[in-house]
Amino acid sequence: MPRSNTRQDVEPIVWKGGRLHLLDQRKLPHVETHLELHRAADTARAIRDMVVRGAPAIGVTAAFGLALEAKHFREGKVEADFERAAAVLLAARPTAVNLSWAIERQRRVLQTLAQSASSAKRGRLSAAKTTAVSPARAAKALRETAQAMFAEDVAVNRAMGAAGAALLKRGDVLTHCNAGALATAGYGTALGVIRASWESGRRFGVFATETRPYLQGARLTSWELVKLGIPVTLITDGMVGALLASGRVGAVVVGTDRTAANGDVCNKIGTYTIAVLAKRHGVPFYVAAPTSSIDLRCASGADIPIEERSEKEVTHIGGRRIAAEGVSVFHPAFDVTPAELVTAIATESGVVRGDYVRGLARAVKTAQKKLG
Amino acid sequence: MPRSNTRQDVEPIVWKGGRLHLLDQRKLPHVETHLELHRAADTARAIRDMVVRGAPAIGVTAAFGLALEAKHFREGKVEADFERAAAVLLAARPTAVNLSWAIERQRRVLQTLAQSASSAKRGRLSAAKTTAVSPARAAKALRETAQAMFAEDVAVNRAMGAAGAALLKRGDVLTHCNAGALATAGYGTALGVIRASWESGRRFGVFATETRPYLQGARLTSWELVKLGIPVTLITDGMVGALLASGRVGAVVVGTDRTAANGDVCNKIGTYTIAVLAKRHGVPFYVAAPTSSIDLRCASGADIPIEERSEKEVTHIGGRRIAAEGVSVFHPAFDVTPAELVTAIATESGVVRGDYVRGLARAVKTAQKKLG
Repeated sequence: MPRSNTRQDVEPIVWKGGRLHLLDQRKLPHVETHLELHRAADTARAIRDMVVRGAPAIGVTAAFGLALEAKHFREGKVEADFERAAAVLLAARPTAVNLSWAIERQRRVLQTLAQSASSAKRGRLSAAKTTAVSPARAAKALRETAQAMFAEDVAVNRAMGAAGAALLKRGDVLTHCNAGALATAGYGTALGVIRASWESGRRFGVFATETRPYLQGARLTSWELVKLGIPVTLITDGMVGALLASGRVGAVVVGTDRTAANGDVCNKIGTYTIAVLAKRHGVPFYVAAPTSSIDLRCASGADIPIEERSEKEVTHIGGRRIAAEGVSVFHPAFDVTPAELVTAIATESGVVRGDYVRGLARAVKTAQKKLG
Repeated sequence: MPRSNTRQDVEPIVWKGGRLHLLDQRKLPHVETHLELHRAADTARAIRDMVVRGAPAIGVTAAFGLALEAKHFREGKVEADFERAAAVLLAARPTAVNLSWAIERQRRVLQTLAQSASSAKRGRLSAAKTTAVSPARAAKALRETAQAMFAEDVAVNRAMGAAGAALLKRGDVLTHCNAGALATAGYGTALGVIRASWESGRRFGVFATETRPYLQGARLTSWELVKLGIPVTLITDGMVGALLASGRVGAVVVGTDRTAANGDVCNKIGTYTIAVLAKRHGVPFYVAAPTSSIDLRCASGADIPIEERSEKEVTHIGGRRIAAEGVSVFHPAFDVTPAELVTAIATESGVVRGDYVRGLARAVKTAQKKLG
């Protein structure tokens, strides 16, 4: 097995000594430094300010944020304190469904704890009232669940990578934004698929769009691929058409922040543009979607809230103004690619294509069963 | 008539005191300063280094560059000195056809001068040999022609603007890169069309793509439109799909660096991407092409040389590295939009649509006749 498959190349999220340490992705590729977090509020701020980004990474980070906050839960007020922290985290970024998915999972952990505490007490005393969970027990359970979610995320990405790698048959691969180890607990989603294909022995190059305004492609995807030893070529977002027209790209692979029940894919702004071009040039367009990013409550992409981010991210680069004064800005952070443009969706339950409504529901069910 | 129609808002190319002064567009929108040029070589360098850019502006600048050099032409070596300067200028940038168009026109001026000098001499002395043109006469003729080309370019843009304005019937307008006054001797091509529509009283907003890597949209188009008082909204190149899907854009208008005889349009990288999206959303895609940018010798876009520019323009912004070390770069400065995606082409001879082969040839002929 190649070395890159086993070593921990990139550590975006580290839980150590009861503290959360996030690799500060705003400073990449120039500086690798971790930020230490202590509460839910600073975790929410780190998510909003893009210290950490990428739907799966945001989910795992939020789960740890709740574990951090649990140390400050008050006796008899565990649920209320949990909900206050959950609300702060949930408001950090609206589009990635993994955020609410992770919070919901932690909430269920707490509910299960409360129920079992109650039934234990009822068993002994036959009391009808729900018994409060102790802060210490809540903290332990939330921490352990966050750690489990971290481990599961890496395992999910490896399974999805293996399933998706079979889709990459010829030519170079084009990817957008960063759906790598940095966007997850480790291994990556779209880059996980690319990596699994590379590790299977197939040789190819990757084209990475720089992904303005936040430059995740230039700063993060390029950095990860260089580290992995996979040849990477950077292009600006406007070059996608010329690149696909050149015939060098055999497949597009992207991640997703939320995928609707019908297969409409919400992902980083610019994804839809690429999908339309891929369709025109007959290049398959694949999405790597862990089931945690599939939102069956959204019937279609129209139900997905699109975050609008600050004007400054467009008018400035690296703190320096590039645009003329007096200009307005339109800055949706995501767009929706309709299912008809999506060739297949790789999940940890396998590859879904054709009837997305049925296939995605089945993939989610399979994954949930596996978790038990 | 609105004031913006008559005042000289932007002076990219100024001939004064026998010197060429170019507005240094690399420093916009922050600083407005003109660079003074003295020879063909520094003019070529200014074109290559993007002090001045935009196909029509490059043409007029090259014509002035030859006028500058003419002051150094040696007695009896006028043609040779001209050709050496022409070669230096021609090599500056390969894609914009206006460069060779302008040089060819100056060459004909010199040839006409040589012929008339010869026939005058033959008349008196019946000499068979061609008589050399004096450096002074050559310098005067080249300067006057450059000045005429400057004036014609503004007149051409106004005529094209008036013709093209009739195409903009509803909604906002999307433009790419900078095809404004800055890209010409004045008034602009694509922005000329937009400006003429605005000056006719129609009210609308303009969306400008930032146009990485060189950010002509963020730096130049935004700056020009703010100056003109036309509402402008900046987007990154990847937002084009989401914007067109939103239904707010009624028309796309872009310039061109070279248009082939069949209507294939070579323009700033990213144009093709926009054209494909416009087609998908039923938004008309218009090109403002002065006949000086139509190259009837190129049967199709495949015959147009595409300039590849430096990696650094992609990996760096404002002198600061944004990309990870070790990444490769693909940097074509232009792409080709096939004629089938072009709804109509506005020229100074009127609007061409449908049969581009016949229509463009006729537009060129009409323009040449007008020049005499």
